[in-house]
Amino acid sequence: MEKLKKYVSVKDEDQFYHEGAVELLVFNFLLILTILTIWLFKNHRFRFLHETGGAMLYGLVMGLIIQYATKASDVESGTVYECEKLTSGQSTLLINITNQVYEYQYKREISHHNVNGHQGNAMLQKMTFDPSIFFNILLPPIIFHAGYSLKKRHFFRNLGSILTYAFLGTAISCIIIGLIMYGFVKAMVHIGQLKGWEFHFTDCLFFGSLMSATDPVTVLAIFHELHVDTDLYTLLFGESVFNDAVAIVLTYSISIYSPKENPNAFDAAAFFQSVGNFLGIFAGSFAMGSSYAIVTALISFMLCEFPMLETGLVFLLSWSAFLSAEAAGLTGIVAVLFCGVTQAHYTYNNLSSDSKMRTKQLFEFMNFLAENVIFCYMGLALFTFQNHVFNPLFIFGAFVAVFVARACNIYPLTFLLNLGRKQKIPRNFQHMMMFSGLRGAIAFALAIRDTESQPKQMMFTTALLIVVFTVWVFGGGTTPMLTWLQIRVGVDPDEDLKAEAASQTASNLDKNTTKAESAWLFRIWYGFDHKYLKPILTHAGPPLTTTLPEWCNPVARLLTSPSAYGDQLKDDDTDYIINNDELTENYESSAHIPVRDRTGSTQATGKEDINEGDLGLGGYKLRLEHTAYQPQMNSLA
Amino acid sequence: MEKLKKYVSVKDEDQFYHEGAVELLVFNFLLILTILTIWLFKNHRFRFLHETGGAMLYGLVMGLIIQYATKASDVESGTVYECEKLTSGQSTLLINITNQVYEYQYKREISHHNVNGHQGNAMLQKMTFDPSIFFNILLPPIIFHAGYSLKKRHFFRNLGSILTYAFLGTAISCIIIGLIMYGFVKAMVHIGQLKGWEFHFTDCLFFGSLMSATDPVTVLAIFHELHVDTDLYTLLFGESVFNDAVAIVLTYSISIYSPKENPNAFDAAAFFQSVGNFLGIFAGSFAMGSSYAIVTALISFMLCEFPMLETGLVFLLSWSAFLSAEAAGLTGIVAVLFCGVTQAHYTYNNLSSDSKMRTKQLFEFMNFLAENVIFCYMGLALFTFQNHVFNPLFIFGAFVAVFVARACNIYPLTFLLNLGRKQKIPRNFQHMMMFSGLRGAIAFALAIRDTESQPKQMMFTTALLIVVFTVWVFGGGTTPMLTWLQIRVGVDPDEDLKAEAASQTASNLDKNTTKAESAWLFRIWYGFDHKYLKPILTHAGPPLTTTLPEWCNPVARLLTSPSAYGDQLKDDDTDYIINNDELTENYESSAHIPVRDRTGSTQATGKEDINEGDLGLGGYKLRLEHTAYQPQMNSLA
Repeated sequence: MEKLKKYVSVKDEDQFYHEGAVELLVFNFLLILTILTIWLFKNHRFRFLHETGGAMLYGLVMGLIIQYATKASDVESGTVYECEKLTSGQSTLLINITNQVYEYQYKREISHHNVNGHQGNAMLQKMTFDPSIFFNILLPPIIFHAGYSLKKRHFFRNLGSILTYAFLGTAISCIIIGLIMYGFVKAMVHIGQLKGWEFHFTDCLFFGSLMSATDPVTVLAIFHELHVDTDLYTLLFGESVFNDAVAIVLTYSISIYSPKENPNAFDAAAFFQSVGNFLGIFAGSFAMGSSYAIVTALISFMLCEFPMLETGLVFLLSWSAFLSAEAAGLTGIVAVLFCGVTQAHYTYNNLSSDSKMRTKQLFEFMNFLAENVIFCYMGLALFTFQNHVFNPLFIFGAFVAVFVARACNIYPLTFLLNLGRKQKIPRNFQHMMMFSGLRGAIAFALAIRDTESQPKQMMFTTALLIVVFTVWVFGGGTTPMLTWLQIRVGVDPDEDLKAEAASQTASNLDKNTTKAESAWLFRIWYGFDHKYLKPILTHAGPPLTTTLPEWCNPVARLLTSPSAYGDQLKDDDTDYIINNDELTENYESSAHIPVRDRTGSTQATGKEDINEGDLGLGGYKLRLEHTAYQPQMNSLA
Repeated sequence: MEKLKKYVSVKDEDQFYHEGAVELLVFNFLLILTILTIWLFKNHRFRFLHETGGAMLYGLVMGLIIQYATKASDVESGTVYECEKLTSGQSTLLINITNQVYEYQYKREISHHNVNGHQGNAMLQKMTFDPSIFFNILLPPIIFHAGYSLKKRHFFRNLGSILTYAFLGTAISCIIIGLIMYGFVKAMVHIGQLKGWEFHFTDCLFFGSLMSATDPVTVLAIFHELHVDTDLYTLLFGESVFNDAVAIVLTYSISIYSPKENPNAFDAAAFFQSVGNFLGIFAGSFAMGSSYAIVTALISFMLCEFPMLETGLVFLLSWSAFLSAEAAGLTGIVAVLFCGVTQAHYTYNNLSSDSKMRTKQLFEFMNFLAENVIFCYMGLALFTFQNHVFNPLFIFGAFVAVFVARACNIYPLTFLLNLGRKQKIPRNFQHMMMFSGLRGAIAFALAIRDTESQPKQMMFTTALLIVVFTVWVFGGGTTPMLTWLQIRVGVDPDEDLKAEAASQTASNLDKNTTKAESAWLFRIWYGFDHKYLKPILTHAGPPLTTTLPEWCNPVARLLTSPSAYGDQLKDDDTDYIINNDELTENYESSAHIPVRDRTGSTQATGKEDINEGDLGLGGYKLRLEHTAYQPQMNSLA
């Protein structure tokens, strides 16, 4: 008899494992379908549905099937039990049922209105996985990969514009969306739609901040494939990367804004505390992320013989940056972003060529999987999420707000930036940037983080609809839009850079241009980085003995890597910065030659550059350039 | 007020995330330490502590710190609550506490004697993670990697011996350990140590089966590094890979052996049911794993332009093999093992060279991480596991049983095998195999799967001690043992194979040797595989038009890849099989030339072969061969 019971208990436990297996199997199946579809589309050069859009579509269909094909299996589902002796929510609960002790783990607090009959539907429940999975498992690789692949040629000279869009632009977007939504909410209250709900201006701002995280992953993939103008690509990519960080911290700061008395009145103290929170969390996360990357750079300085150990170390230390930031109450995602940027800037130079490729491919692969899982899940959530609140007026308002806010972000800021920029951002680029204001993984993850109250559920539903709409409609419309706006495609970034370097040498004499003035802060940083940080943290850069004052020589000799003396030209970044000051200072020695040097090495290794974030479309891309798009490029140029 | 409560609730939730972060951070920290230590050891050619041993050591120290530095934080920990209304264990429990509904998730059934004051120690609780993590997340990549890297030259000609050790050897080992332990248990009952426990012969067999999973990861790493004789390496590697599968299914079959009446008496029906279970689960898992791999091979047949998609597909389909087997009530680990072997045999040939490297490096990296996490965790568990049952007599008995069983497995079976083998397994190889009977991840994972009852807890404690002892003592003693047993090191497998091929050509006339006779079953399979399966599933092998009968020509032409006609020599496996029959049949066309061809390609690409499972010690390995071990090799040879 005792044996028999044990047998049953083993069976039960196995049943439990199997359910987890089925759930994962569904996701695997969706991802395999997505991969096969991508392959089919890529093979037929069909560019109207990006892989993320496809993943979402399959998720949606699967969600529909799960929702209607499974039913609540548990008879007692939705019953709330009373336990008089329990006084507070404990993390672990031991409950005695008919003389058997069961251990229960705390999951969440649930509102009365959320308790429903689907509580016992194991399949649905498993499918709606914990929001913390997004923040702790799926987002970090995506964000890290964005940072790690940011080492683009044109990035540094657009840094000012990128940061303006990311910080100022996101703040503008958040406030505009908040204001418009507040108007709509007032109207909804007026017609009696939100009876009994609490919906303050801070809630509208909260919605504004989470909807301000743009995610043009679809657009960027097509840009990369078609070799769209590098400046436009860099502006959009850089904006979307940093804007995520800003939106996440902003959302967090707004969510903990807590005025002491009336939540509708403006509380200056609480407001400044929120601003302080924002700055503190952002700076802290930045410091956490970059210091882990610097530690990695220092360790990899000595560890360059063993590719697997190097790869492991970069992976583990970057993940630790995320976890440490989370543990310290900062924002892990922001930390991991800056960790990625710093890793690419310093550590990457210290890695052996084998490790460079390994780390790149590893992070690329993780990004690929995580991205497709998120988009699959978004599709699924449209049907499997149990507490959707569809409010047509709110949804309409949100669509209006999102587009107005994007316009108020791009056009005025570009106007201001163009005053200071030597190379203006043309009209068609501005329209394209306006068009690329897609919402994606971050907005979704921020919205699903809290879906307890009804206002939050309404926000989640609305955010999800906006994501689905923008990914499908704007993502699919990218190629026609590019043609319509007559934006250059098929650009070779190397050619572009060389031509520019040549034209700059010609105008070398009038070196105090507008651009140099506006970039003074950046030039100071660049000089410091090039002269001191790079030589200390990497094998590249000039030896410290030449950059430090003479009296520091003993220290300098100690800190300089022996390979630095011969390898001044190895620094991969020098050609990323075309800067008048630099050009006059050491044009012959470092600005021009690396361009040639780099092109040479690209031809030699071939693989490395082609693989960068394009799903390894090496062969295809070349075909494309030479056949399909060459004519179009000519007609556009 | 409402705002304030929300603020607190957000805080609480964050607190929850942070605890998870701290726990992961501890593991990351341990892994980083391990990596740095490995690097230090490798750099100083210190071979007494393998990375897994190091990981275990760090885990142990950390466990000690956690155990004594943290204390039970929860006042109400260990209190069991009564809820009259609850009648059965539900997967989700909604509990009303002071008008707030909390959702609790079912975790496990817990015995009364296991309820203790540490229940509320969040740190300890988080550190002792769910055993299902081992089976669903950590073991699959390790086992798959073993299968995927099994494509070794000498593997196929030792297949018979490997399968004998794996199946017969594991069964012998299980029964011997079971019998010896039963003797010890009887003695313990006699002196009154196990009062009130139920401890049947099946429990002893259960312990025997889980202790039969050998894991010579430490030994194999050193073998690989020192280039120990390839036959010995292959025998040990092959045995350990397949033996895991056998031990897992055996353990499962024994655990569900349930005689109807008296558990001490022998129940023939239940016994045959167990044997049937074993055969059914094994065959089913094998079929599941290999069919997923065949699907992958067929898909990758067309998908060879996009490395990232290929890699994603191989990864997802292999994982699906695992999940499908679990969902179908089979053994996922066994499925994933055979999936790995089949992927290596067929799919690998269809992949682009970029994907070959990507998949290899990806699985190698996952294996590296998972292995070190498991060994770290084993160290941790020695102190953080709350229900250890140390019984000196049982532990002593287990040590004796494990070594006696290993001896009864290796020596008699080798004697029998040597009767049939042309190339005998020498005495010193047998001693080395005896010495390499380490226990590791699988034994641990099987033991931790069920630690509810006290006998199971005692088994777990004992298994853990045996793992720690064998990994440290035998792992550390590998190099001295190799010297003492005068086993060849510094062997170049290519050279080895060529020499042998030459000697076989010389004795080509007397082709009906003992070996050919014993391998008839294998030869039939090989012929079938070479003539039909390989041409259908891969780009390699002879065209079907030449292997199928003439009347099948239309079908054959349809199924043959166009590249197969020119690429007969591409098949990587042909040189793995030195088989008299093959040699006479097509020696000139496929057996000899690939050897030369292969050596050539190895020199050309270089990287691929060196990276194979050796943590990328390319540079180091070469140095080692030429300096440290050359003299020793000469003295041994």
